[in-house]
Amino acid sequence: MERNIRELVQQMTLEEKAGMCSGLDFWYLKGVERLGIPSIMVTDGPHGLRKQDGSADHLGLTSSVPATCFPSAAGLASSWDIELARQVGVALGEECQAEEVGVLLGPGVNIKRSPLGGRNFEYFSEDPFLSTRMATGHIQGVQSQGVGTSLKHFAANNQEERRMSIDAVVDERTLREIYLASFEGAVKDGQPWTVMCSYNKVNGTYAGENEWLLTDILKDEWGHEGLVVSDWGAVNERADALAAGLELEMPASGGIGERKVIDAVESGNLPLDKLDRAVERLLTLIFKAVDQQRKGATYNKEEHHQLARKVASESMVLLKNEDQLLPLKREGKLALIGAFARKPRFQGGGSSHINPTKVDDIVEEITRIAGTETQISYALGYRIESDDVDDQLMAEAIQAAKDTDTAVVFVGLPDRYESEGYDRSHLRLPDNHIRLIEEVAKVQPRIIVVLSNGSPVEMPWLSQVKAVLEAYLGGQAVGGAIADLLYGEANPSGKLAETFPAQLSHNPSFLNFPGEGDRVEYKEGIFVGYRYYDKKQIKPLFPFGYGLSYTTFEYTDLSVNRNELTDQDEVEVRVNITNTGARAGKEIVQLYISDVESTVIRPVKELKAFAKVELEPGASEVVRFTLNKRSFAYYNVDLKDWHVETGEFDIQVGSSSRDIHLQTRVKVESTATFIPTYTRNSTLGDIQRDPVNKKLLEQVLQQFQKASGMGGDDAGDHADMMAAMMKYMPLRALVAFSGGAMSEEAMNQLLDQLNRKDHGIRA
Amino acid sequence: MERNIRELVQQMTLEEKAGMCSGLDFWYLKGVERLGIPSIMVTDGPHGLRKQDGSADHLGLTSSVPATCFPSAAGLASSWDIELARQVGVALGEECQAEEVGVLLGPGVNIKRSPLGGRNFEYFSEDPFLSTRMATGHIQGVQSQGVGTSLKHFAANNQEERRMSIDAVVDERTLREIYLASFEGAVKDGQPWTVMCSYNKVNGTYAGENEWLLTDILKDEWGHEGLVVSDWGAVNERADALAAGLELEMPASGGIGERKVIDAVESGNLPLDKLDRAVERLLTLIFKAVDQQRKGATYNKEEHHQLARKVASESMVLLKNEDQLLPLKREGKLALIGAFARKPRFQGGGSSHINPTKVDDIVEEITRIAGTETQISYALGYRIESDDVDDQLMAEAIQAAKDTDTAVVFVGLPDRYESEGYDRSHLRLPDNHIRLIEEVAKVQPRIIVVLSNGSPVEMPWLSQVKAVLEAYLGGQAVGGAIADLLYGEANPSGKLAETFPAQLSHNPSFLNFPGEGDRVEYKEGIFVGYRYYDKKQIKPLFPFGYGLSYTTFEYTDLSVNRNELTDQDEVEVRVNITNTGARAGKEIVQLYISDVESTVIRPVKELKAFAKVELEPGASEVVRFTLNKRSFAYYNVDLKDWHVETGEFDIQVGSSSRDIHLQTRVKVESTATFIPTYTRNSTLGDIQRDPVNKKLLEQVLQQFQKASGMGGDDAGDHADMMAAMMKYMPLRALVAFSGGAMSEEAMNQLLDQLNRKDHGIRA
Repeated sequence: MERNIRELVQQMTLEEKAGMCSGLDFWYLKGVERLGIPSIMVTDGPHGLRKQDGSADHLGLTSSVPATCFPSAAGLASSWDIELARQVGVALGEECQAEEVGVLLGPGVNIKRSPLGGRNFEYFSEDPFLSTRMATGHIQGVQSQGVGTSLKHFAANNQEERRMSIDAVVDERTLREIYLASFEGAVKDGQPWTVMCSYNKVNGTYAGENEWLLTDILKDEWGHEGLVVSDWGAVNERADALAAGLELEMPASGGIGERKVIDAVESGNLPLDKLDRAVERLLTLIFKAVDQQRKGATYNKEEHHQLARKVASESMVLLKNEDQLLPLKREGKLALIGAFARKPRFQGGGSSHINPTKVDDIVEEITRIAGTETQISYALGYRIESDDVDDQLMAEAIQAAKDTDTAVVFVGLPDRYESEGYDRSHLRLPDNHIRLIEEVAKVQPRIIVVLSNGSPVEMPWLSQVKAVLEAYLGGQAVGGAIADLLYGEANPSGKLAETFPAQLSHNPSFLNFPGEGDRVEYKEGIFVGYRYYDKKQIKPLFPFGYGLSYTTFEYTDLSVNRNELTDQDEVEVRVNITNTGARAGKEIVQLYISDVESTVIRPVKELKAFAKVELEPGASEVVRFTLNKRSFAYYNVDLKDWHVETGEFDIQVGSSSRDIHLQTRVKVESTATFIPTYTRNSTLGDIQRDPVNKKLLEQVLQQFQKASGMGGDDAGDHADMMAAMMKYMPLRALVAFSGGAMSEEAMNQLLDQLNRKDHGIRA
Repeated sequence: MERNIRELVQQMTLEEKAGMCSGLDFWYLKGVERLGIPSIMVTDGPHGLRKQDGSADHLGLTSSVPATCFPSAAGLASSWDIELARQVGVALGEECQAEEVGVLLGPGVNIKRSPLGGRNFEYFSEDPFLSTRMATGHIQGVQSQGVGTSLKHFAANNQEERRMSIDAVVDERTLREIYLASFEGAVKDGQPWTVMCSYNKVNGTYAGENEWLLTDILKDEWGHEGLVVSDWGAVNERADALAAGLELEMPASGGIGERKVIDAVESGNLPLDKLDRAVERLLTLIFKAVDQQRKGATYNKEEHHQLARKVASESMVLLKNEDQLLPLKREGKLALIGAFARKPRFQGGGSSHINPTKVDDIVEEITRIAGTETQISYALGYRIESDDVDDQLMAEAIQAAKDTDTAVVFVGLPDRYESEGYDRSHLRLPDNHIRLIEEVAKVQPRIIVVLSNGSPVEMPWLSQVKAVLEAYLGGQAVGGAIADLLYGEANPSGKLAETFPAQLSHNPSFLNFPGEGDRVEYKEGIFVGYRYYDKKQIKPLFPFGYGLSYTTFEYTDLSVNRNELTDQDEVEVRVNITNTGARAGKEIVQLYISDVESTVIRPVKELKAFAKVELEPGASEVVRFTLNKRSFAYYNVDLKDWHVETGEFDIQVGSSSRDIHLQTRVKVESTATFIPTYTRNSTLGDIQRDPVNKKLLEQVLQQFQKASGMGGDDAGDHADMMAAMMKYMPLRALVAFSGGAMSEEAMNQLLDQLNRKDHGIRA
């Protein structure tokens, strides 16, 4: 329905406008009855719908209506399948329609700075490109159903520790290349109806009051058309937040927020115009939701469960498979060990904690798929609610492992280990889980470990087991998915969207996580995840992009459609992928860019494209990627823009960040020109980079050499040192070292000549 | 001679005063003849005297008068022998007296941030405590002879790349604990007559214009009584520098510096008083030097050479000695391989490059000590001036290695690899040196590598050799010292004053060295050297404090004279060391402090005391250490002071940073009290740390719980999350989440109560 929103706003009183900028209650926005502006509902997401009935809170304590629980983002991201993310989004949108929910609060795209982050399971990746692409699929899926999303938590909310008061101190380049980039693509390509600001401060200012983030970057640079909503309770000073670009405070603040906005407008501290524009965005959102609401909509729970199963099987990552122990054969004896096999850990705690429509029992699902020729036994192994070894359960587990041909051990992180609200303090499994693996391994060589956890764990026991399946938090159909994968009904195709470090201390943020008091400095800068492990040459337990399959793939015929280009051109990359194994399977093909030489500090390589291809045995497919300026660029804070330094770049294609199969080199020329300003403190080396100035300097240097004896060609053994000395010497030092032979006046005249802006250096 | 310096200054004209603040020429200070103020000479140091004759330059190009070349600081520091550093200082002072030199420009105490630093050989350590103690010994030795020193380069001059224009961006805590601490002890305990400011900027301001560094910290906080001299050519704006506390510009600037000072005084920009005080310091220095000048002083070259030999043997570090291959027996066949054996690398390049009174030939020295029963052969192996393998020389070396019982291979870094002026770009030995080791190892299992280099090298060949002696840059008596050590005339007792990383990329500064353009950020912060390797649990090739001996030592009976103390108390630590081997030897006993638990980010442990004990076989000695507040403290930038957080500390005693033999725990109580100011953004958890406020908050929280349903005891499965949520929640959020039940007014009243300053928290 077409409406004149602007006109509607003009009809509203100051109180009505200010009122709309805070919620009605915990989950509803305010409407204005007299003007026919309805109230819409928002609910938590993102991997399922959490619509609460009765008294509401944000913490997942109160029960919510049943909804399909899909794998959490950590798992979904491991599918590297944007289309799958879209399908999940469509299903979520359908469920929102059925529950009359206008906006689903997700997806979350915060970068996994540390594997300890309590909410990592809700986020996609350590890599902004993968993260933002997955989020885009999710957003487009949900919004295709006439339901809004909320891209969160904007920005630099990378820990739970002191999340409401911490100040994340991050340099701009790091923000732009890593933390903001994870939002940028999703905002531009997905246009989420809302973006949720985070609790924390960014460089001294609350995210919710950060005009640079909410207005300059989000709205102006990226062109976000929706509105910004606060994380629940994130508003500090309501009027300041509104001025900065935060349109909607949630939840209701008992009239306090409204009052402050009214006061600010009346006192002239907040221009009415700003309030009007905020209300316009609010009305646009409300009517967009209402107009697309499908009364009486329903969804098919069983179909959604089946989708959740498919998504889960694509999300899990086969980390190890010695002697091709997997897939299992449908015969012999199989012991399923571990309490998780009956009471699976399939989602994380906090605002995303939902009430599933049903939950698979892993033992049942495996029993169903294993068939009647397999003799299945089960042992509890440990109690989920304790870390202590239960001797009785352990003895039973060992016995079960002895009496079988193959043992599958289900371990991972219990609920209390990972949740919104607090971070982990270590990467270990519970003691009783570790002991279970070790004890079973002592009596049973054919052992498969299935992990259920939302973020990386250390695996000191890795060499003692034959196979490891990382199931992440697989959603309500986790059991079916695991069964499918163990028996080859599905071929594992997930790859890690994050580095698994050999030990926590190797993580780049380790020295500065979670900070001191209310300040956390991101001193590792752009070196997050594989960017760090690559550069530091530290071997991870499992690298970013890694994952096994039951088949094998060959990479051949890497080619580019041009070897030289400018930063305004695109280059197309092709590579041929062949399934060289005996089973159909999917391969995630990863393209990384490596700047061969750079004057700025850059990662060894960065993910700039990826594709997932499905191939029958023996089949081939040519995968095409298109690269553009951004693929080669870093963020230049002086230029306030992305910049490609003229030079060579390697295009690397592989099956993981540490498994590059093919590479080729292109030359990219920058179209940016710098005309530096020289001062008395400019070094001779810098001045000489410009050929025109180099000539100007020559005469002066001859004069200097005569006076000082420095800089001549007769330095003999010390030639290297003299050359370095002259290169790094500031212009002013010529005056000092010449003993008066060169004057300040002469230097100033030279500077005038050097600074004629009729020439420059190609960057 | 007693003089009234102040009166003398009053007699000087403005021109005379300003004139004195710049040098007379390259090496002489200005005097004022009419007032009987003489001119004194300064020369480069620090491991030998570099008095140039004829036309002067700062770069070691022009020849200088012969002087004893002692081991450079990298080696000297490995002796961990303050008394030895003092002896070297005394000898240097004697040579200065003989050459009528007033001030010797050294020692250098810059911290080895990166092993790539071109000037690392001139510096002591990666650890400020060891560095500042060694420097103190050096200063006291030189100055005991009536000759001044110049503690350099102040400050944060940790690279040669762009050293005259780079801005070192370092947070204050890191400066205080690491980079400045290396100067602090030497200033306080050594009172060097001069301190030399560095070329670079520190946090945006040239070191030479940095009033915070030169006046606030150096003169006011540390009580430096001497003067500050510029590094040669480091002055940017002369008047600004003088105002900041830089009394002496070197070298002469052709009258430009003087003119600027005069202009600044005349225009009122520089208070005359400041100039007067600078001149007072200058006159004090000049007369101190002149009054103590010993006319016609001489020194015994041979005695100094013998001292250099002793120092060198104490400075070298035995890194590996498989099967006790060393010490060598005086029999059989011995092949000496490598050009360094005849033309040793014994000092670094640049301003410290001196003209030795003589230089040992290593082959000769070994031949002399080996005795007549040993049949010695020699092969060149490589050419020093090239990295290329010379096939002919290689073949000869292999043949020599085949034809012998034992081979000693002399390799390291040629002059061009390490010098003032530029940094290294990698840690590799030259290709032909590596190949030589590998080829010799193929034919000769009994192989000893002797390394001559000023800073760490990677050793991919380590497993192929039996023994490695790190000789550093051993000074002119390097040959005798090596011979002494190889044959057990001296028992190796040096220990590394720096970490040898397994590979360059492991170094903490690796991601940010040497910076981008004119900016280098010290993002690793306090985690320099072993502080980093310990915390990150990265195994170094050889750890800080490591070194082997031909005997063994046992550590027993660690005790403290008190288990509980306040930060105003001292604690005495005793440990018994026994020589359990068959030879007399020296052990360097190291004491590290580890804060058991801390709210601030701290290293795993830090060196806080050390001692070198000499023991006959079977003999024991009780080593005593005294620890004080500073031993347990970190620098608190908010308090602007050193602070010991109340709690437990482990006192760890060992033979290296990775070889702790004994430890005991003490409890230290802070005498500092914090009275925090609470705001609406203070978290509930922080407020509750103060028991008085905790009580105040209780009632409010009950009210809040009733209104919001949050924070009660019935959170069930989510109790952990709810507890975290409440702990991290800011006070203001109570207002928002209570839905109006709590008002802003009530919160402000509560804040007034919380902020009554009649109670506080013991820090």
